[in-house]
Amino acid sequence: MTDLTFRDDMTVRLVKHSASDADVVLAARVSTQGPESQSEVWGLGPAEHGLIRYLMRERHGSPFEHATMTFYVEAPIFVIREWQRHRMASYNEESARYRELEPVFYLPAEGRNLVQVGKPGRYTFESGSALQRETVRNATREACDFAWQSYRTMLAAGVAREVARAALPVNVYSSMYVTMNARSLMNFLGLRTGVDSARFRSHPQREIEMCAELVEGIFQTLMPVTYEAFNAGGRVAP
Amino acid sequence: MTDLTFRDDMTVRLVKHSASDADVVLAARVSTQGPESQSEVWGLGPAEHGLIRYLMRERHGSPFEHATMTFYVEAPIFVIREWQRHRMASYNEESARYRELEPVFYLPAEGRNLVQVGKPGRYTFESGSALQRETVRNATREACDFAWQSYRTMLAAGVAREVARAALPVNVYSSMYVTMNARSLMNFLGLRTGVDSARFRSHPQREIEMCAELVEGIFQTLMPVTYEAFNAGGRVAP
Amino acid sequence: MTDLTFRDDMTVRLVKHSASDADVVLAARVSTQGPESQSEVWGLGPAEHGLIRYLMRERHGSPFEHATMTFYVEAPIFVIREWQRHRMASYNEESARYRELEPVFYLPAEGRNLVQVGKPGRYTFESGSALQRETVRNATREACDFAWQSYRTMLAAGVAREVARAALPVNVYSSMYVTMNARSLMNFLGLRTGVDSARFRSHPQREIEMCAELVEGIFQTLMPVTYEAFNAGGRVAP
Amino acid sequence: MTDLTFRDDMTVRLVKHSASDADVVLAARVSTQGPESQSEVWGLGPAEHGLIRYLMRERHGSPFEHATMTFYVEAPIFVIREWQRHRMASYNEESARYRELEPVFYLPAEGRNLVQVGKPGRYTFESGSALQRETVRNATREACDFAWQSYRTMLAAGVAREVARAALPVNVYSSMYVTMNARSLMNFLGLRTGVDSARFRSHPQREIEMCAELVEGIFQTLMPVTYEAFNAGGRVAP
Repeated sequence: MTDLTFRDDMTVRLVKHSASDADVVLAARVSTQGPESQSEVWGLGPAEHGLIRYLMRERHGSPFEHATMTFYVEAPIFVIREWQRHRMASYNEESARYRELEPVFYLPAEGRNLVQVGKPGRYTFESGSALQRETVRNATREACDFAWQSYRTMLAAGVAREVARAALPVNVYSSMYVTMNARSLMNFLGLRTGVDSARFRSHPQREIEMCAELVEGIFQTLMPVTYEAFNAGGRVAP
Repeated sequence: MTDLTFRDDMTVRLVKHSASDADVVLAARVSTQGPESQSEVWGLGPAEHGLIRYLMRERHGSPFEHATMTFYVEAPIFVIREWQRHRMASYNEESARYRELEPVFYLPAEGRNLVQVGKPGRYTFESGSALQRETVRNATREACDFAWQSYRTMLAAGVAREVARAALPVNVYSSMYVTMNARSLMNFLGLRTGVDSARFRSHPQREIEMCAELVEGIFQTLMPVTYEAFNAGGRVAP
Repeated sequence: MTDLTFRDDMTVRLVKHSASDADVVLAARVSTQGPESQSEVWGLGPAEHGLIRYLMRERHGSPFEHATMTFYVEAPIFVIREWQRHRMASYNEESARYRELEPVFYLPAEGRNLVQVGKPGRYTFESGSALQRETVRNATREACDFAWQSYRTMLAAGVAREVARAALPVNVYSSMYVTMNARSLMNFLGLRTGVDSARFRSHPQREIEMCAELVEGIFQTLMPVTYEAFNAGGRVAP
Repeated sequence: MTDLTFRDDMTVRLVKHSASDADVVLAARVSTQGPESQSEVWGLGPAEHGLIRYLMRERHGSPFEHATMTFYVEAPIFVIREWQRHRMASYNEESARYRELEPVFYLPAEGRNLVQVGKPGRYTFESGSALQRETVRNATREACDFAWQSYRTMLAAGVAREVARAALPVNVYSSMYVTMNARSLMNFLGLRTGVDSARFRSHPQREIEMCAELVEGIFQTLMPVTYEAFNAGGRVAP
């Protein structure tokens, strides 16, 4: 029997970037300084911090577009699906037509709340009982195992990958490269994290929020002033 | 035991549209006629046919963007995934977080070629043997059945839909509304149909091609002159 | 001497549309109802009003994208420039390469405030003195007149339109067709009108605001429930 | 009298970039190699060259989107207008509302053809006579001079910049930052250069072609393999 791998985490790795707070300042200043804006932005002093906060508050979003980041991502298909709904980004993803997928599947970690309580539009999530956790664990594992056997059976019979993959579940891991600019990335964070202090509270599925949190950490490192202004402004993408 | 439904077809239904060949002519003429372009385009004579062919041939694509179509689509998730990679469109899709999915799954029809022959980048598809067909049939059906039981088991235990759906395969049907303009639609047709006469021959998976063929039929009906010019020009989106 | 025309107004005319509040409801319901969403939306009762307000408040913007409107616009080039910075739209504009422009120029109306008071980022506009008004009137008219003579002189000498037009001022009128969806249109309204009750107060130039007000009137007529929700939500595009 | 500056050239300066041929290879390989694609692309050998040519020929455009370039541009407004019609890019431009413009204007160089010969859709450009050249020179210079005096007169009278600028001609220089990815950039080159060997021959205005040629030189330096494949494939953006 094939060894299936079950993961409960996501991978978001920074591959390359051209992203700094100075990029925002440079682009913004062309509107008021024209050709004089070309001088290097050597450091970010109070004036530059203030400018970035001003742009965020007034929702002047375009200066944030010149900062770009490329991520390598591993996540289950149901997460990839949500991510790729964000159209202001560039994607290249592992293909189940051109490649046999690996038997790597998502299984919720211990801490993942399993039970939805409340009415549509007002759900909260609760942990769930030990029995419910056991049910998820077993039912998911068995379904993955069965699906994987079906996939392998078809491949072994000489059936095309693109036909055989129909049997695979949406929690199988896929991988992709994503390039986003900082404006689009903040929109992604605003919608895909559920932060109580946000001006518009979002309710993302926990699994894409795990990805968004990893993106957020990288973004904070690369563009700390922009990141602080984003939070100060209620996490509304400009 | 639940009754599973297996389908081998796709649904693409025109919901509404604001799309005609005259839209293209009107928009194109503003560049040469300015305010005089406003007169109604009452009919499409030889001059209008010629203009549309000219725009297509010279790849002046923007006049085709003012014609919009909204479709209702039913297709398996693996097809929806490919479709939604087209970013110049608007999508709203059935949510497995907000709704229990129906037990409707895709199973290839008799005529669907199952075997890939050749080297990467140069594959052709062949029918496959009776045994291979039987294997696909059984393995896919059983995988769907098993997955559905797992999904139902979790739901019955009170587990949230968004957690339980992880077990469902990518051939479960989803539904969505899509709005595209004629330019984007032609790009979709160029990439998602494999027509030998095309200047750039595409190799789409058969299942999304089935959707594209339905889209193509509707497009041809609504915008016959544009459609003819698209084909005459080698099916290259302008 | 050529008769120059001076205008102080903008033209925004609805050419065609596929836009109604019902479009929004239909698209939104697919997420919770899947195939059952297909039933016609016969009327908009309290449930539908509530749904639209909910989508606006929670910033679920995609259902608003299926409603599209096409406008015919006449405005000076400096306004067209601002409008075309909105990338989620389709444009075809009168070409000064393919067509001789008409001698129609923008001149501010009596009521247009002419004087900017205050510091960068905190300007207000005030009416200006009679002398200032006279200065604008004369200086603008004379500049247009002189530029027009230069343009005509070059054309009369057999110089190409695209070369001669370099002399024309940015207040010469151009014409264009624009297609926008309701989501993009609300973003346009949010940025190009300066309404005190808006959650994010914008400070557009008055001339593009005049266009935006005309767009707003048409939008209100076609999609009254969406329009009301847009205002109730602080004029933030979802 | 103010000293006006007349220029006959364009500025396109690379500000920053995250663009190399290796980016394309990395992103493309995720489709066939999934997680294994992560290994560094250390060099570009024959396999990598072949892959890039294959992607271009088959019009697999998305891998080219991860390479981004930011340019600083100085060009007359009529060129900026054409450039900003390309929506797959990010722009920040000098504002005539927030800043007094400089008296820098475009005047065609000696070599610029001035006369259009032929029928619509089939024009060629010819040099023009000495008299025509003299006419352009004088008429343009005088129009700029007159317009500039009108602008200064209004500003001196205390009129707002955004009102006064209405008098300025479309050949006044503006400045902007532009960020484009390599796919969008190739589309820009395809449309804004007129190269006889191109599969789809474009007929851009010479002045934006001058910008495009500068962009092309930078692109060729940063991504030589992609650039070669672009030319080999008839300069059709993938």
